[in-house]
Amino acid sequence: MSWLEQVKWNENGLTPVITQEYKTKQVLTLAWMNKEALQLTAETGHAVYWSRSRKKLWHKGEQSGNQQLIKSIRLDCDNDAILLEVEQKGGIACHTGRHHCFYKQLVNNQWQPTEAILKDPKEIYK
Amino acid sequence: MSWLEQVKWNENGLTPVITQEYKTKQVLTLAWMNKEALQLTAETGHAVYWSRSRKKLWHKGEQSGNQQLIKSIRLDCDNDAILLEVEQKGGIACHTGRHHCFYKQLVNNQWQPTEAILKDPKEIYK
Repeated sequence: MSWLEQVKWNENGLTPVITQEYKTKQVLTLAWMNKEALQLTAETGHAVYWSRSRKKLWHKGEQSGNQQLIKSIRLDCDNDAILLEVEQKGGIACHTGRHHCFYKQLVNNQWQPTEAILKDPKEIYK
Repeated sequence: MSWLEQVKWNENGLTPVITQEYKTKQVLTLAWMNKEALQLTAETGHAVYWSRSRKKLWHKGEQSGNQQLIKSIRLDCDNDAILLEVEQKGGIACHTGRHHCFYKQLVNNQWQPTEAILKDPKEIYK
């Protein structure tokens, strides 16, 4: 069985992908891949996801320039989740212009933003 | 809207949860929560997941003793993924007896195990 077939793709042909910054170990994003996205990620050396909202392959950084260069690709014990280590170009992984997507922390039963916006999204996607 | 309602639960009432070790920043597991699991996690201070295979709440460590003590709970930009920072009791997060679940790395088109088994699963779940 090929390495791509060993991944347990879900009923929609997808698997969740955690992307972690190589240098800081910060978790940047949770995104999704299908088989083609994972193959392209391995072949090209930059992260390619499946956009569930746009229903198409999404070469991370294609619009923003904020590519994610692959340092390692890992699979978990159950073969149904992937972990990438990447170098985050431009220092911005989140479409809100923040370094990473997990910027809301639960404090006193409220999700409170804890991270600064580094760049106005209007400037990223123009 | 309550903080629990602000999470976008999927069609099965679940959301993926990344769990990262507070001290080492290592990503330990990808698991799933429903609303009740997230509420219990916040209330009790240890990770409670939803087991998709057993279809029931899963107080992590209930059998193994390897509890995960909560340091922070974060939500992503799209409100559909959660990141926990935890203290991993016993130093073992994976049911295979390894420190973490992402122990298979893609090398030369093969998933190669890269982490030692710290404890025989038969000794963990007896």
